[in-house]
Amino acid sequence: MDYFADTIRNAIRTVPDWPKPGVAFRDITTVLQDRTAFRKLVDAFVHRYHDQKIDAIAAIDARGFIIGAPLAYELNAGLVLVRKKGKLPFDTLVEDYELEYGTASVELHKDAFKPGDKVVLVDDLIATGGTMLAASRLIRRIGAEIVEVSAMIDLPDLGGSRKLREEGLNVYTVCQFEGD
Amino acid sequence: MDYFADTIRNAIRTVPDWPKPGVAFRDITTVLQDRTAFRKLVDAFVHRYHDQKIDAIAAIDARGFIIGAPLAYELNAGLVLVRKKGKLPFDTLVEDYELEYGTASVELHKDAFKPGDKVVLVDDLIATGGTMLAASRLIRRIGAEIVEVSAMIDLPDLGGSRKLREEGLNVYTVCQFEGD
Repeated sequence: MDYFADTIRNAIRTVPDWPKPGVAFRDITTVLQDRTAFRKLVDAFVHRYHDQKIDAIAAIDARGFIIGAPLAYELNAGLVLVRKKGKLPFDTLVEDYELEYGTASVELHKDAFKPGDKVVLVDDLIATGGTMLAASRLIRRIGAEIVEVSAMIDLPDLGGSRKLREEGLNVYTVCQFEGD
Repeated sequence: MDYFADTIRNAIRTVPDWPKPGVAFRDITTVLQDRTAFRKLVDAFVHRYHDQKIDAIAAIDARGFIIGAPLAYELNAGLVLVRKKGKLPFDTLVEDYELEYGTASVELHKDAFKPGDKVVLVDDLIATGGTMLAASRLIRRIGAEIVEVSAMIDLPDLGGSRKLREEGLNVYTVCQFEGD
């Protein structure tokens, strides 16, 4: 365990049987409302990218905004929103992805990046990796370069981080919960 | 116009007839993806609160997270999420508010604040003020003190900021668009 991981893991609240029986939900609100833990959470990402040239942080709707916005501010980078379908008002690209039941879509403004922009894609959690993978495809379609996809929590047993690495993406997560 | 307002106003993109004919949508994504404008946006809020004792920033789902998260980080405060109904996994309080057609609800974890906490409530935009007012009620029900409610944009013709002031709340917005 590194400097950041223990603090963050310990500040996460596990809520049993939510949103349905048998699921142990990792509740990050207890990290956010603890000023020390929240600072350390953001600092984990700042520490990882501060000495690289990052043009923009792409943040996934909605909890990705919580890490992406302060990270962009600290790195003096732009902040780009990857949103659920129907939320962005200008010309967009769309990617669909599979859910347990049915499909969902993420959307990105076509003018969000300049070709060749170096981008870190951020969300709170990697589970099956479906949202992150769809968002990565959107960013690559515009011609930007994904330096890394990163999240606060990895649930490695659900296979998302492995799948993302198989797509040639670098993956960083602050902490991991196995057995989920 | 002050130091921040001009930059932010000029960086906002107005999308005509979205989400429906006759509406001029104020698109903030062009502010966020411009690293200079985004820094100035966050700095407007940091500048306003840096010399006050603020315990927590309460941020409204989802665009409020974009300002609330870096503001909390910079002020070394906690970040509390006011979410759409059904998103928070622990014990919550709920407030309903009126929409143009029907009603919506916002939700807050009961353990989000300690009584007497000094809180700034943040969203991207004040239109009719319904969400902000419902969120304010949640915060007051827990016994926290709202130092100010603040947003990037005020649409004063829609009456929200006036209504919030009538409820005894201090209101700050970085810029205003009249005639909306």
